Amino acid sequence: MFRMLTKTSVTLGSRAAGWVRTMGSHQLLVPPPEALSKPLSVPKRLLLGPGPSNLAPRVLAAGGLRMIGHMQKEMFQIMDEIKQGIQYVFQTRNPLTLVVSGSGHCAMETALFNLLEPGDSFLVGANGIWGMRAAEIAERIGARVHQMIKEPGEHYTLREVEEGLARHKPVLLFLTHGESSTGVMQPLDGFGELCRRYQCLFLVDSVASLGGVPIYMDQQGIDILYSGSQKVLNAPPGISLISFSDKAKHKVYSRKTKPVSFYMDITYLAKLWGCEGKTRVVHHTTPVISLYCLRESLALISEQAIRLPTVTTVTVPAGYNWRDIVSYVLDHFNIEISGGLGPSEEKVLRIGLMGSNATTENVDLLAKALREALQHCPKNKL
Amino acid sequence: MFRMLTKTSVTLGSRAAGWVRTMGSHQLLVPPPEALSKPLSVPKRLLLGPGPSNLAPRVLAAGGLRMIGHMQKEMFQIMDEIKQGIQYVFQTRNPLTLVVSGSGHCAMETALFNLLEPGDSFLVGANGIWGMRAAEIAERIGARVHQMIKEPGEHYTLREVEEGLARHKPVLLFLTHGESSTGVMQPLDGFGELCRRYQCLFLVDSVASLGGVPIYMDQQGIDILYSGSQKVLNAPPGISLISFSDKAKHKVYSRKTKPVSFYMDITYLAKLWGCEGKTRVVHHTTPVISLYCLRESLALISEQAIRLPTVTTVTVPAGYNWRDIVSYVLDHFNIEISGGLGPSEEKVLRIGLMGSNATTENVDLLAKALREALQHCPKNKL
Repeated sequence: MFRMLTKTSVTLGSRAAGWVRTMGSHQLLVPPPEALSKPLSVPKRLLLGPGPSNLAPRVLAAGGLRMIGHMQKEMFQIMDEIKQGIQYVFQTRNPLTLVVSGSGHCAMETALFNLLEPGDSFLVGANGIWGMRAAEIAERIGARVHQMIKEPGEHYTLREVEEGLARHKPVLLFLTHGESSTGVMQPLDGFGELCRRYQCLFLVDSVASLGGVPIYMDQQGIDILYSGSQKVLNAPPGISLISFSDKAKHKVYSRKTKPVSFYMDITYLAKLWGCEGKTRVVHHTTPVISLYCLRESLALISEQAIRLPTVTTVTVPAGYNWRDIVSYVLDHFNIEISGGLGPSEEKVLRIGLMGSNATTENVDLLAKALREALQHCPKNKL
Repeated sequence: MFRMLTKTSVTLGSRAAGWVRTMGSHQLLVPPPEALSKPLSVPKRLLLGPGPSNLAPRVLAAGGLRMIGHMQKEMFQIMDEIKQGIQYVFQTRNPLTLVVSGSGHCAMETALFNLLEPGDSFLVGANGIWGMRAAEIAERIGARVHQMIKEPGEHYTLREVEEGLARHKPVLLFLTHGESSTGVMQPLDGFGELCRRYQCLFLVDSVASLGGVPIYMDQQGIDILYSGSQKVLNAPPGISLISFSDKAKHKVYSRKTKPVSFYMDITYLAKLWGCEGKTRVVHHTTPVISLYCLRESLALISEQAIRLPTVTTVTVPAGYNWRDIVSYVLDHFNIEISGGLGPSEEKVLRIGLMGSNATTENVDLLAKALREALQHCPKNKL
């Protein structure tokens, strides 16, 4: 009801007039910044760059939810749901699946820090920035890095990778699924099987591809897969998704040296994320609000997945009769659509987009027809 | 207007009935998780543990703001404002001041990874979990770690630290300002000067203290200071604040080896955060939404700082006459308060809490009186 009179106080000039305040033996010599007295302003933008993308409305709403403790059972429930969501979008049953509390780069380091020990041989597909980055990180921690350097825009064949595996006998192969610096999609089929034969683990960066290109971690024999939150998932940047196969886990858990980072030590993260039974062990304070958002984005993609692409069911907007809408669209636009069937009778409109009918023009036309129908059809007050 | 009929589809049983979908040569063997079909639910909690704390309403609102690109000029403006806010709460003029895209642990690693090289002597005050953690991290990267082990609940004197400095000739001393595992506040005066004499850099963890206990980075001769977002600042966890003195920067920039982490490499972060002139260099995708929230929390603490503790000015609520409120409070509660003065005339109430009058009881009584006044005083329609 009452509020602090900040703006008036500023006008009164307490800041401008040589702001110094004494506290104990020290003085506040650095004044509060003027810029922070202005309201936060964020422009409206359509984000069509390589990421971040715009947040889905439901994800946006989750960002405004209240805080809870990071070690409370309600938070563990959310974390469990996120794990299941990741297992779904990765198409994996790996128990060691979790969120890294950092951006995609942090996930890359989490993979390399945990899998590589000093002196380990590491084979990298370097056909763009991400392979180069993986090579640089591995060099920092003392791995023997072998880069398969290719021109930007090129990708790797099974034969090329097999040559590298045979020559360098690496413990780990790195490929980028979606090479966002060059726009290349690396095919993934067959590489897992190849790595298995050469007793090499297979690490894939899917930051720029996950959700937009099919990926099947288990079926494609990918041992370590990571991705970001801020691309196709439409969640805020700052956290990333990662999963380890049992083989990858075994390599991590039988290390002779500790990984250089405690923050990214997967043996601790696994316990925090409940990947080793019920007991959770405090490790670091997880980004609670960002996790809310990721949970919602995974829920959205899970819902999408069970939508039939050929027939779209749309809820009849409250207050309308579906027959009016179907008639309007037929009478004024010469488009046939249909009502519900069986359990969905009276509840939905059913829209078919089949074969050569499935065009953008037809979708746009129908959207226009439906918009008009809502303006002209009778609506009961609720 | 229309929405996808997700719930009905679930009821129709497409999930339950052995959910398998074929795509190319692979199958979607992992179904979308049932748990994600339920709405996200977050309980209302008063968070009185050692952090995270509840978000201030203005911070909460920032969490729901729309996304913008992390390398856009509007974002750089927000980052600059955050830098100024950190300089204010740290009381430092260090240009190398920025946000680490990870929790407090990540800030600790950022400090240690950048400052220590293999073989460097590192002196740690280990009187609780945070010193032990710093020691463990430094050991992982090959520093020579010397722990000054003390019983939980104890703190360090200048004499004790001087002994350690003389004996171990460290390049870096670590002390925890707010030891949240034992509830101890480490005095900081004098340690900076001591370190300077022994040519040692002074690193302080203020995650649990910043904003609640005065700290004066420059005046106390602290070379590296970091803190978290989720404690006194009331922002979401997941990012942290850090600043390096020129001396600390010099040590980082004259390293013989690269720090183990690219994600936390301060030479890149400095360029991303515009600490080295105008040019920004892409490094990683910063947590845009979390940065909005931190910006708002720093704005709140900056506003607070210029509030006079002895006289509180409160805006007269819209539609009311200040004289009615002052009279009501006097007539019904025997409390004298006052209206504005000079430029604040007609605009504010002025409330004095001075000396023995400054008690919780008096504040509560006045709050009650003001609440009643608003119920009974005439209010003009606006």
